[in-house]
Amino acid sequence: MKVVKFGGSSLANGTQLEKVYNIVMAEPERKVVVVSAPGKRYSDDIKVTDLLILLGEKCLAEQDTTEEFNTIVNRYASIAEELNIPETVIEQIKNDLSSIMKQEKQDSVLFIEAMKAAGEDNNAKLVAAYFQSKGVEAHYVNPKDAGIFVTNEPGSAQVLPESYDLIYKLRDRSGILIVPGFFGYSKEGDVLTFSRSGSDITGSILANGVKADLYENFTDVDAVYTVNPSIVKNPKEIRELTYREMRELSYAGFSVFHDEALIPAFRAGIPVKVKNTNNPAAPGTKIVNTRENTNGPVVGIASDDGFCSIYIGKYLMNREVGFGRRLLQILEDFHLSYEHVPSGIDDITVILREDQLNEETKKAVIDRIKEELHADEVKIAHHLALIMVVGEGMRRSVGTTARAAKALAEAGINIDMINQGSSEVSMMFGVKEEDEKKAVQALYNEFFANVLVG
Amino acid sequence: MKVVKFGGSSLANGTQLEKVYNIVMAEPERKVVVVSAPGKRYSDDIKVTDLLILLGEKCLAEQDTTEEFNTIVNRYASIAEELNIPETVIEQIKNDLSSIMKQEKQDSVLFIEAMKAAGEDNNAKLVAAYFQSKGVEAHYVNPKDAGIFVTNEPGSAQVLPESYDLIYKLRDRSGILIVPGFFGYSKEGDVLTFSRSGSDITGSILANGVKADLYENFTDVDAVYTVNPSIVKNPKEIRELTYREMRELSYAGFSVFHDEALIPAFRAGIPVKVKNTNNPAAPGTKIVNTRENTNGPVVGIASDDGFCSIYIGKYLMNREVGFGRRLLQILEDFHLSYEHVPSGIDDITVILREDQLNEETKKAVIDRIKEELHADEVKIAHHLALIMVVGEGMRRSVGTTARAAKALAEAGINIDMINQGSSEVSMMFGVKEEDEKKAVQALYNEFFANVLVG
Repeated sequence: MKVVKFGGSSLANGTQLEKVYNIVMAEPERKVVVVSAPGKRYSDDIKVTDLLILLGEKCLAEQDTTEEFNTIVNRYASIAEELNIPETVIEQIKNDLSSIMKQEKQDSVLFIEAMKAAGEDNNAKLVAAYFQSKGVEAHYVNPKDAGIFVTNEPGSAQVLPESYDLIYKLRDRSGILIVPGFFGYSKEGDVLTFSRSGSDITGSILANGVKADLYENFTDVDAVYTVNPSIVKNPKEIRELTYREMRELSYAGFSVFHDEALIPAFRAGIPVKVKNTNNPAAPGTKIVNTRENTNGPVVGIASDDGFCSIYIGKYLMNREVGFGRRLLQILEDFHLSYEHVPSGIDDITVILREDQLNEETKKAVIDRIKEELHADEVKIAHHLALIMVVGEGMRRSVGTTARAAKALAEAGINIDMINQGSSEVSMMFGVKEEDEKKAVQALYNEFFANVLVG
Repeated sequence: MKVVKFGGSSLANGTQLEKVYNIVMAEPERKVVVVSAPGKRYSDDIKVTDLLILLGEKCLAEQDTTEEFNTIVNRYASIAEELNIPETVIEQIKNDLSSIMKQEKQDSVLFIEAMKAAGEDNNAKLVAAYFQSKGVEAHYVNPKDAGIFVTNEPGSAQVLPESYDLIYKLRDRSGILIVPGFFGYSKEGDVLTFSRSGSDITGSILANGVKADLYENFTDVDAVYTVNPSIVKNPKEIRELTYREMRELSYAGFSVFHDEALIPAFRAGIPVKVKNTNNPAAPGTKIVNTRENTNGPVVGIASDDGFCSIYIGKYLMNREVGFGRRLLQILEDFHLSYEHVPSGIDDITVILREDQLNEETKKAVIDRIKEELHADEVKIAHHLALIMVVGEGMRRSVGTTARAAKALAEAGINIDMINQGSSEVSMMFGVKEEDEKKAVQALYNEFFANVLVG
């Protein structure tokens, strides 16, 4: 049995839905189908989810909602029309939307949650109706009905462990099961959404629950690339990579697959395949537990910008027991999460995402560090980029660091920071944001330019 | 005005004392002379300080102390005899030692402190007597009389800030002032010793207090070397290095100059010169605030072994606010100090000195980490060595990391860890202990083999 997930761009119009239908029907093993909301049809198009949020906000403000309501319904209706899907499903979608709009609005957050989830929920109904119109046994399955129960955390709900046994029962259902992604239900019956790329999470949870042989994630790229194609033109594709490699890559700007979505599949040892709806014949990228095929120590390079560093210098710091712990306590008090804390003998530096700090917080944090830790010197450096070089092969390969450092040096890039030594499958370089693209290109040339990637 | 300090090997016998006399008399600026206890005369010789500890312990155990007492007195007497110093000073030393032995013993720690300090104290009396016998105006100055007041921390006393104003008054004294190193007095009048290389600390405090133009530290090597001579034969000498460079080098096995001893001189901006009593014509090594002369990015390489690492893996660790802080709290509860904490996305590693952990502590720490932090995996790696590559030039030099990593790779050494990014003047490599010497040699060859060091 396979769980198959389709992203928004795979469901943006009728032509796309036909592709989805053909893909699902091509293999009888493709039994559980997870769908996103309809994505953008062209670059300026508005996502259904964004329209729904707008609709929800107007409801809360008790403003006129006719326009938004009609725009949303028309997105589904135009697809239905294109594919000759019976009108009844559009009536159903209208009624569903109207009934959400009439819901209790005391808790505005929960109301918006329900609104947002309607994009995926109605699309699952539409897709099921389409399959049925083709004479195929297909059923819309609501997440509550599927057994997806989650914590009470709006926008970052976590699946409850008891869900998995309930989901396992889906195996006994007949026909193709079309499940909306992105959300689950609390024990109290409220709709709660997952974090971004939430449909990937739904697919992964279902794959775990039904003990699928494979979780296929259909998107609009042929594969996971060794590097961001917006930085390096026509980069090599990755055929196979491990969960750990994927997670390390996801961390720094690899948006193909959200790292959190991997966990349920990983826990159940279910391989994940990233494939292209628009080119299903392409081999795609398989994410597995262990891989044998290595053509080099590095499998991929990711990068992200928007980091800053707080440097703290104090004489004889390394003789002070508890210094690091007290520093981290101050960060915690400000709800700041950090990426890395390199430390010297008399100094320690905290690398963190800059968007967490406004001018006020910045000042408050520095003041507390100076006062409580009696630091001699505290200074902030801005506009840092972090580059992750990832590969299981690194732990066995002498000289990978040397190759990476040499490539950066030859490109004239100063390395502000290196973080190597905890993860066995990655190393992190900190460089100035202005050097980020040049650095990624240099590393790509070093590790991939003449290599077939496995 | 210069403060001049002589180490134990410079004062081990009469011949050495003559050299000391000649060095001090060569420059009228050399007014304050700090002396250690007499050092070893040959490799199997017992240090006076160790004899004093033995004597102190026998006193506490109320055992016969005749042998130790005589051996100690004879060390001074033989030097006095060699140099024709009047017998009276030996009588003075005997009386001093006897009176310490009769001191209050309720606080055995303080009793041993006083006993240990007698090695330096009596040597200062002997040296002063020797200078006087040569017709020179020289005075023994007791640390209390000099104004060295310290905290109540036996074996690691810290100078009290008010000392410096008292010490400044030494400038008004006539003649050469001979001050014993290694100890000061608490406000209560108890003798308390500094940490190891304590005479260096005394010299540095006095240099700060009298606002010396230079603090000369005479030992038995021509200079600070770029690398440990027991690892690399005839290494290059360092002519000039900064306080920061010296402190970073001291951290990992550079025993020429104890890092703590630098601080008082640094705070007052007083340059420090390391020179050889046995070859005073050699230029030595000067430690300064800033240096202009750089012949390469790296000034020295130091290394130390005996480290281990504790690896902690946990899925989605980087989403858990407070994880690092709670880990450091556990270490603090066990009074463990750590060197470095590299962290990945789902893992964090603590590097610490292995001698802090016995089997019992090791188990207890791991158990607490597993239980309290719900870690998926905790494992310890043993026998790590840390190598420090130090140089102010590194922050301006692109490619130093690449050169270091390449040198290690070409020597077939796997880098377990890199710590770069906090200190601007050093980077740290973690390697297996078995690779330590090979790694240091490889780095030396890379950075010094064809370079004149400034």
